[in-house]
Order: sequence, then C-alpha cells, then structure tokens
Amino acid sequence: MMGKFQIRTDLALEARENYEDMITPPHLRSAADRASHEENAAFQSGTDARIHGVRVDEKVDEEREIYTTTVTIETENAAKAMGKPVGTYITIEAPNMSSPDEDYHREISEELAKHLDSLIEGKKASVLVVGLGNREVTPDALGPDVVNNLRITRHMMKEYGRMPSGMETAGEVSAIVPGVMAQTGMETLEIIRGVVDETKPGLVIAIDALAARSTKRLNRTIQITDTGINPGSGVGNHRDAINKETLGVPVVAIGVPTVVDAATIVNDTMEELIAEMDRSDHMQMLGGTLGTLDHAEKYEMIHELISPHLNTMFVTPKDIDETVKYLSYTISEALNIAFSADADE
Amino acid sequence: MMGKFQIRTDLALEARENYEDMITPPHLRSAADRASHEENAAFQSGTDARIHGVRVDEKVDEEREIYTTTVTIETENAAKAMGKPVGTYITIEAPNMSSPDEDYHREISEELAKHLDSLIEGKKASVLVVGLGNREVTPDALGPDVVNNLRITRHMMKEYGRMPSGMETAGEVSAIVPGVMAQTGMETLEIIRGVVDETKPGLVIAIDALAARSTKRLNRTIQITDTGINPGSGVGNHRDAINKETLGVPVVAIGVPTVVDAATIVNDTMEELIAEMDRSDHMQMLGGTLGTLDHAEKYEMIHELISPHLNTMFVTPKDIDETVKYLSYTISEALNIAFSADADE
Amino acid sequence: MMGKFQIRTDLALEARENYEDMITPPHLRSAADRASHEENAAFQSGTDARIHGVRVDEKVDEEREIYTTTVTIETENAAKAMGKPVGTYITIEAPNMSSPDEDYHREISEELAKHLDSLIEGKKASVLVVGLGNREVTPDALGPDVVNNLRITRHMMKEYGRMPSGMETAGEVSAIVPGVMAQTGMETLEIIRGVVDETKPGLVIAIDALAARSTKRLNRTIQITDTGINPGSGVGNHRDAINKETLGVPVVAIGVPTVVDAATIVNDTMEELIAEMDRSDHMQMLGGTLGTLDHAEKYEMIHELISPHLNTMFVTPKDIDETVKYLSYTISEALNIAFSADADE
Amino acid sequence: MMGKFQIRTDLALEARENYEDMITPPHLRSAADRASHEENAAFQSGTDARIHGVRVDEKVDEEREIYTTTVTIETENAAKAMGKPVGTYITIEAPNMSSPDEDYHREISEELAKHLDSLIEGKKASVLVVGLGNREVTPDALGPDVVNNLRITRHMMKEYGRMPSGMETAGEVSAIVPGVMAQTGMETLEIIRGVVDETKPGLVIAIDALAARSTKRLNRTIQITDTGINPGSGVGNHRDAINKETLGVPVVAIGVPTVVDAATIVNDTMEELIAEMDRSDHMQMLGGTLGTLDHAEKYEMIHELISPHLNTMFVTPKDIDETVKYLSYTISEALNIAFSADADE
Repeated sequence: MMGKFQIRTDLALEARENYEDMITPPHLRSAADRASHEENAAFQSGTDARIHGVRVDEKVDEEREIYTTTVTIETENAAKAMGKPVGTYITIEAPNMSSPDEDYHREISEELAKHLDSLIEGKKASVLVVGLGNREVTPDALGPDVVNNLRITRHMMKEYGRMPSGMETAGEVSAIVPGVMAQTGMETLEIIRGVVDETKPGLVIAIDALAARSTKRLNRTIQITDTGINPGSGVGNHRDAINKETLGVPVVAIGVPTVVDAATIVNDTMEELIAEMDRSDHMQMLGGTLGTLDHAEKYEMIHELISPHLNTMFVTPKDIDETVKYLSYTISEALNIAFSADADE
Repeated sequence: MMGKFQIRTDLALEARENYEDMITPPHLRSAADRASHEENAAFQSGTDARIHGVRVDEKVDEEREIYTTTVTIETENAAKAMGKPVGTYITIEAPNMSSPDEDYHREISEELAKHLDSLIEGKKASVLVVGLGNREVTPDALGPDVVNNLRITRHMMKEYGRMPSGMETAGEVSAIVPGVMAQTGMETLEIIRGVVDETKPGLVIAIDALAARSTKRLNRTIQITDTGINPGSGVGNHRDAINKETLGVPVVAIGVPTVVDAATIVNDTMEELIAEMDRSDHMQMLGGTLGTLDHAEKYEMIHELISPHLNTMFVTPKDIDETVKYLSYTISEALNIAFSADADE
Repeated sequence: MMGKFQIRTDLALEARENYEDMITPPHLRSAADRASHEENAAFQSGTDARIHGVRVDEKVDEEREIYTTTVTIETENAAKAMGKPVGTYITIEAPNMSSPDEDYHREISEELAKHLDSLIEGKKASVLVVGLGNREVTPDALGPDVVNNLRITRHMMKEYGRMPSGMETAGEVSAIVPGVMAQTGMETLEIIRGVVDETKPGLVIAIDALAARSTKRLNRTIQITDTGINPGSGVGNHRDAINKETLGVPVVAIGVPTVVDAATIVNDTMEELIAEMDRSDHMQMLGGTLGTLDHAEKYEMIHELISPHLNTMFVTPKDIDETVKYLSYTISEALNIAFSADADE
Repeated sequence: MMGKFQIRTDLALEARENYEDMITPPHLRSAADRASHEENAAFQSGTDARIHGVRVDEKVDEEREIYTTTVTIETENAAKAMGKPVGTYITIEAPNMSSPDEDYHREISEELAKHLDSLIEGKKASVLVVGLGNREVTPDALGPDVVNNLRITRHMMKEYGRMPSGMETAGEVSAIVPGVMAQTGMETLEIIRGVVDETKPGLVIAIDALAARSTKRLNRTIQITDTGINPGSGVGNHRDAINKETLGVPVVAIGVPTVVDAATIVNDTMEELIAEMDRSDHMQMLGGTLGTLDHAEKYEMIHELISPHLNTMFVTPKDIDETVKYLSYTISEALNIAFSADADE
C-alpha cells in the first residue's frame, strides 16, 4: 500500500537475505555471487543452522516453475535477528506469474488457496477481506482490484442462511477497500478496526502491494503470512500494524511486490559498482581504495548523494497495468476457492 | 444509493406533494393541474395552513433561476402526516444544474455552502463525509465522485496542527466510500458506525443519489436535510437509517435525484391516462367509467400489470455520465467552501 | 451503444416477433398469449411458412439451458418485411448468462466462439475488434469492457512474425474503443472508417450494448450477425450503419441487450392494460369501449401521454455493473478462443 | 506516452542543457554548479551566443512564480546541434503547478491558453485533440484525462451551426484517445492518421506525458511546441513521429514530464558520485583516479552496471494520482479557454 506512501511492508525472504548478507564473509558478497546464490541455493530445507529459531522449507515444482519457500520464525530472538515477528511466511515465486496465460494463473490460484487453507485452519467461517492501497495509482491498486473480483457472500448468508446449494461449509465473506490516508484523512487501521469491532469477523485477510528490495522479485512473487502487516522493520514498532494485536482477530496478509523504492535502485547499483571495483582487474586501483570505506561509511556517502526527492518516488515496470490485472485475478480466484463450500475436503 | 438497491431515500418536496394529493379534491388532481402546481405555486411561504407543524419557506432567485424551498417539520404529528422525520429539508432547484457552465456551478456551490453552514452551525470542527452508493453504476456514483474531489485535511491537521496558513477556523475533514452491500457483504450502516465509533467526528455528512418520483426533478434538484438518511417512509422504520439515532452524532444528508424507479414511471403514465380520461371530451365515455374505480382499486390494477421485473429496474437519462460529473463537482466544491478556514465570516 | 444515445440497434428475434404481431389474429394478441408464445413456441425450425425468404433454425440445449436461434433473411423482400438487412442472425439465450458461475460462462464462450467461427469462415487472418459504446455509462460499457480483456496480437505478429509457439493459424487481432459522439465530436463511423482505411483489417467485429423491446431479454441474450450494425429499422437507412457497405470489409456485430427504452416500458404496460381490458370480466365494460380504438389511435394516445422526457431515458437493472462485468468476460473469452491458433480444428 | 513504452519525447529545455554540458568546460560541470545554473541563470534572453540559430527568450513572473522559456530553433544546423526539429518550444515552469490550489491552476491555464493562441494563430477553426498515453497507468493517463474534461463541440456545430450563443469565432473541437499499442495492436500514428484523413481537422493538438531527464522537473513543467511529437532524438528519425510531415496538418504538442526513466536516475546519481569525487577533500584520492576515465568510459561502465531490467521501468512520485488530476484539469481548462468564442480578443 502506498498513499503518500511510506513503504510499510516487505518480504521475509529478503529479510533473510539481508541477514545472510550480514553474516556472509566479504569475499562472498560480490554481486555475481549474490545473484547465483539467489537463483540456485538460496534456501536449504530444514532448520537453518545459522539462525536459531528460524526454519526454512523449500519446495520446487520444476515442471510448472513454481518455487515455494516457507520461513517459520519460532522464537522472539529469531524475530529480532530477522526483523520480523514470530510466525509463518510462505513465498510463492513463479517467473510467469504475470504473463497472460489463464490456465497457469489457475494453477497458481490453487497453490495459493492450499497454503491459505493451511494458515487459516478452520477459521474461515467468517472472513473480512481488506483491499489495502490506492486504486488510483496502478501498482498500488492490487488490493482494491482483488476485492473487485471477490465472491461476497456474507449478506446473502445473513439473509438466506447456509442451507441452499451445499453452502454448509462455505465461509461468510465480507470485504472493504478502505482507501489511503490522502483520500480518507484517517489511518487505515482506524477504518479497519472500526469495521472489525462492528461486524466481528473471525479472521481478517489483508491484500497489499509491497515494495521489494530488488527489481528481480517484482510481479513474480506472492507472500502469505499469518503475522499480518507490520510496517517498518516489524518487531517493536507496533504503530499502524494491522495484526492480531491491533485488531483482536487473526490477520493473514497476502502481498505482491509491485514497486521498488527509487532510493533502493540507486543504492543497489552503487553497491554493484563497489563490488565490481573489488573484483575487476580493470578497476583494482580505484576499487581497492574505495573498498577501504566500511559498510556504514559507504551507506552514508550514498545517502548524501541520493536526492531527497527520491524518497517520494517509486520504480515500477511499464506494463504494470497488465501485471496488476493478472495478479489480482489470480489472488481473487485463490480466495474464492479457499472460501467455497468444498475447499476443505 | 442503489446496490442491489432498495430505494432508500426520497425528496421531502415530493412527500409534501403526495400529501397534497391526498387532501386535494379530486377535480384538482388532473395531470395538467399537478404540473402547473409544481411549476408555479407549489409552496406558499409561511406556515402551511393545511398541515399543522409544517413550515414552508420559498425563495426564488429569478435572475439565476435558482428556486429554494425550506420545509420544516416541527412536530411528531406533522412528521407522521408527511412520512418524514422532524427536521429541516432544504431543496435547491435549478434547471441548468447539470449543464456544462462552470461559473453557474460555482454559484450553486456557494448557495449550497451557505445552506449547509446554516444547518451545521459551528459543528464543522471535525466532519466525516460519507460517499454512499456504487461507483460502478453511473447514476449511483454521485456520492463516491463527490468524495473524489473533496479536500481531505484531517490527517494533515493531526500531524501539523492548524497553525499554518490561517487554518485556525477550518474544519477537520475525513471521508469514506463504504461501497454497497453487493460489494462488501455488510450493511452500509455497519461500516459507517464502525468508523464513527473509532474516529469520533463531530458531524457526519452523507452524500447520496436519490430516486425521485418524477423524471422532472432528475438532475436539477439538490436536497439538504439535518435528519440524515431514512429509507422507506422514514418515520417508525429505523432499520438502516443513517442518522443521529443510529450513529450518535448529527447527520446532514445531501441528495440529488438521479434515477426514477421503473415502476414509478409506468405508474405515472397510467395515472395521466386516467386523468386524461376524466378530462378529455374525446375519452369521456371511457374515462367516466374507469374513473369509478377508487384510488386503491386503480393502484392494485396497475400493480398487477407491472411486471415484477420492473421492481429491479431503474430509469435514468442517457447523458447521466456528464450530469453526475457536473453535479459531483458542484457538491464537492460546496463542501470545500463550507469547511475552509473563512467560511463562517 | 448509447452516447446521447439514439437507440441504434435491436434484435432480429424481436423484429420477427413484431412481424408475427402484425400477422397474428387479434384474438391471439393478448399479453398472456404473447408471453407463452415467447417462452415455448417462438420459432419453429425449418422454413418459416409465414414469411417467404426467412429461414429459422432453433436448437435447444436442455441440460445447459442454452437456446440458440438462427434467423436467415435470404431475400430483399424478406428483408423489407423484417425491417432488417439480408444476412444471418444468431441469437443465444441463456437465463443464467449473467450469474457469477465461471464454468457456465466458459461454456457460453465456447458456444459463441463456434458460431463466430461459422460466420467468419477463414476471414480471421486479421481482425479489428471495435468496442462501441460509452465506458462511463455502466450498461453501455459492454463494448469497451470486452476490448479491455481481449488478447491483442497484431503488434507482436508484425514485429516477431507468426513463427513462435504455433501461432501459424492464429488471427492478427487489433482493437479500438472509439468512444461516443459526446466524447469525440465525431461520428463513430468516421473514426472506424479512418482506422480501417489505414490498417486494412480483413474483418471488423463490432461489440455493442443493445436496446431490447422487452425487459425479459435483458442480459440473457447475445446476438451475432454478419450484417454489421444498422441503426433505425435497418433497411433503407444507411446513415451511420457500420457494415460492409460503409467500411469496405465484412462486419460481424455482437450485441447484448442491456437496456430498454423508457418509452417502451410504458408502452408495453399500456398494451397489457388494454389486453387485460379485452379479457377480464371485471373490466369488460371499459375494455370493450377502449378496444374500439384501432391500433394507430391507441399508439397516438399513448404517445401523447408519454412525457417527451422519456425519450432521453433508459431502463436498466440495478445490478447492471455485475451483469456487464460477467457478459464482457464471456464475450472476450469467446473472441480469444475464436482467434487463437487452433480454433479451426 | 508509455505503453510498453519506449520513451518517445523529452524537453527542449533539457536538450539545451545537454548541449551546454557538452560545451561547458569540465570545471563548471559539477553537480552543484548544474543545480544553481538551472535555478538561476539557465537561459539568457536574446540570441544564444553559443549556438547559432537558437533563440532563447525568458520571462519571469516573480509574484506568481511562473517561469516561461521560449526556445526557437531557427535553422537545420541548430536543429542538428540541439537534436530537435526546427520550431518553437515554450516551457512553463511553476513549482506549485500540482498543488491543490484552484485559483492558481486557473492562472496557469490562462498563461497556457495565451501561448497556445500565439502558436496556432487562427488555425483553431477545427481542431482534433489527441490524448496520448495509457489511461490504465496513472502517470501516463495525462492525455486521456485531459480529453475527459474537454468541451467537445464539433458534433454540435455540425448539427446546429455556429449561430447560437455567440459561437461565431469558436473552434470546432473533436477529440480522441487512441490508447497504446499493447491495447490496440496498432501504432498510435496509424489511428490518428486514419482519423485525420477521415475528418480533416485544420490542426491537431497532441497531449502527452513526457519522460524528463531529471526528477526536478517532474509535474511542474509544461512544454508546448509547434513541432509535434518526435520520439527519439527527433531530427532524422521520422518513424512514429506525430507531426505535420506524417499527418499533413500542423501539430501542436503539449507535454508534461510525469516520469523519469529508472536508468536515468541511477545514471544521475552515479554522475553526482563522480563529481563529488572530483571535488571533495575527503574523496580526493579516489576521485582523482576515477576521474581519469573519460566521459565515454564512464558511461560504458555505468551502463554495464545497470541491470537490463531497469530499461523496462520508470520512476514516478508516490502522489502521482493527485498530480495528474490537477495537471489534466489545468490543461483541459487552457484548451477550453483557447477554443472558446472570444479567446482571440
């Protein structure tokens, strides 16, 4: 969700990569290395030896090119190390997620519905879906667009009951698009809390456009988590969080990175420059010298160079309209499957 | 507001006309008579001799062709007779309201702002504007469109205070577009009550598209009332009302009739047929006979003839897109004027 | 297509019903009769004995509740009698067409694609799809919405050729949403003719919202014809037609009735009143008398009673937003199927 | 206009700055210098001594903070040097252009209308306004949004003539929103040329969102030129140009930079890094060395570092929805003023 948007959310996957950055020996931190690392060996299954209390499970569906990573943060210590609350983070990556192939979208929807089902375990009797974000800004319209294609049933079940047409096990679905602060003058949390207090759903599902740290993840990654939405670095900073603590009911968040912060992109390229200097023969002389600056010094230098304008800017692909259209259908469909009568069987 | 829309609101002006219908001697009830009555002599200023407890004030601005009628229902008895709650109903009629003349719109906005100011008397310190209706159905998008062009200030005042730029007397404006039941699965009232409980505005202003009884009023009439929104015939039926009783804060409603019920239009024509039969030489023989049916019998007959399909249909002008655009700007502008810093002076 | 919309198109099915009205003996013309006639026995298969040069084929798919009628007007004389140009008119009726059942939509899409294929017979190498209508007026947004969900391929085939991924037999699809005259200041025909002259497609497919004569057909009927769009009563009045004659390439039109003229609805009810008068014991005395007016006299009387306002009004269902959403997906999908690589096999 | 958008247009102002970059001695090329240069002394009035055939006139309206620069490229040689066709380029800069102050917008509209009038000199009898860009991508929706608020008159003048209401000197205005190639499968030029050939306007006005080289210009600059739209570096590359040569009628283009290429932003920061290295004591040692790379070498190095992904990305402010709303009103209003009856007096 943007708005005049402070970037509120990000990917647990990337949090973990940051962590790895911190503990990886310098000679492994070159750009080339990081790239291959991301592509091939990012997540060993099983307990992660390096962070106590973090479990990582990975599943690769080679044929359909769907990569699923489940990061479970089990202890408060691990939460601190990762900068993310205790909970489960499922990430589905699929390179063709935003291509116009309907049958493939349907498969992703089913995969997503399955994971959703495992996270909500029978709490689906009454669900409020919240479409976060600004429908007037294309990459931020994901949440509102998902709600647009959702099958809304609460009002009908209230009026007719669940008897007809095998609806006995179906969820009662309601939805809201709260808008962003520039449109409402209110914190999104205020609106959602008001609606939750009034209508008392058993579960909230919040859909949001995310900001990724890397353009490589844009529009090909869906993250589902049972920790809700925790802006900033998560742990410790509870203001504006949309989670069980602030709403009083469990919150599952579904997010797709559709933008990258402009400052991040510049930052990344600068780091690649520095890494290149370390490595390349051609630049040894310069890089060697610049390399003597430590991490903090480099960040400070880069930060000064980045125009303050950039902090109010975001980066997004030129075909973002089609991408958001396909992704929002895929997520709506997943929710429609998950809340239909026979989803549990 | 439509939705799968039960017509929830109507015009006090028309309620009064209905009343008059009931008390008017049959020989005055021909179509021609009603028409001229509407055009010329609808509302005598001063106390209405015929209904105790109803005051009617009329103002005609000949030059700008703006007709303003203020109906004040002062007693519960009068409320029962009129089928409308006790309160003030201001109706602004202007034939060119939906023509593309910006300067004229500005004049209507100022007129509207003035009346609004008189109704809210200093309760403008913090206001929640609610844009009722369905933004996906053109004639019902009036409320959402008004919110779109509103100056939202609450979040800025919360952050920066009112000091800068002479904002000391300005109102703190927040807004929400709750959507309709088919989109949210919730009663509109549930959403608004939740938001009001959470953000505690001092006043709610609800904007809504209305259904008129006559196509003659469409898109040229704005009604403002301090009684909120009272669907059905109002008095006695409080379910779904959006008013001080249900929200706990004063509610001013601003409405513009943009549709007529399909059944109403058929009904009206049938009545004109019957009236014509009474009058015309040419039809004497038939009309005389049909005229022997009493009011109730005629209604029953007509009702049977009208296909049940018609109850799910509405009638609206073909250029409704432009009309709603102009009207929503006019109302947004009125609200922006009313809540700006120096509106009171 | 509306606009400030003159109703430009209608259903061949209804033209035929009108014809039948004209030749049906008066005692069969009661409302009840017409209704049952429509439901049960409207179209005998085979050559229609009553109009020379009109063939009618009917197909009923009981299980899926899809009724398909093919009216072929074979001679100029028949065209005159029907008030429609020589050509083929295929009408698909399905009561649940606008319900939210995706699998059912898919079946309708396939049915539609099949008929489309039979009408265009190999002319699909390069197709311009024209989404007629006003995207700002919900029931008139059908054409623009269909184009929104279409797979557009011409630019890619121009750049990469048809080699990759078995595209050898796929159609080259381009599309335009010309807008309505109030938005463009131009006749729709002017825009389309300009684009056709410049890009030289082999076939034009025009999608349009239609006006039906009866609310019973709304949103459950799709008409496909190879005669293009012929406003007014078709034959003889070529101004504004969008057809082979005006564009120089074959034009297939796909239309769905989404509105009824307000005047039509009043008219229909009046006719039912008159029919009722003929029949009912209770009204014998009146009806007998009114019944002495002939057809033309009755029409004149009704026309005088209908306020001129009504001619600028339309009638549409309250849930038209959802209906247009489902119908436009169904038609887009049919086109996507028809123009994909393996549609012919 | 984006689309899958090749950046097609840019600012003459910036072209000139590039030129200056090339001819400016290295010691003047630091970032700080360029900034102050832009702010204070960018354009000396009168003939530009440095490029033969380029005239620059500057006007500063201190009170309203409107900066107007007119660059006239008078000769083919100058056109080559500037990388822009021969013609007049008027740039209006105003820092508050996208703030929500309606009275200020009106002033900008009047300024813009005045310049427009000077460029089109009596060619306004019949005008086709083209809203370029993709209405589904917020920063690219400027052109379509301008058309949305335009007063369209051609169809009324064709029907009623110019007699009524002092329309004798008003322009006949038509408009089209052609869409982008991913939506239509056609070159924008094909559509416009088709419509121009068919409706024969005397003048085309094309409205487009531009890509700036610097975030500093975003949403505060309007450029008007009588050379039309010339993608790429303009001179010599006529494919896809929308100008007198390709359309056969004069083309005035109005553009507002709403995005910056992602690659540009990275590029700029890198250059600032290098400049900083030259200057700063703290970095002398490194910068001195890196500074030995020549311009071309540095570009190559940077280009290699920028991920190819970036070429499909754009950068835009987070509040782009409001900005585009205000800017499109301002431009529509300017056009409405320019084409109204008494604009010439």
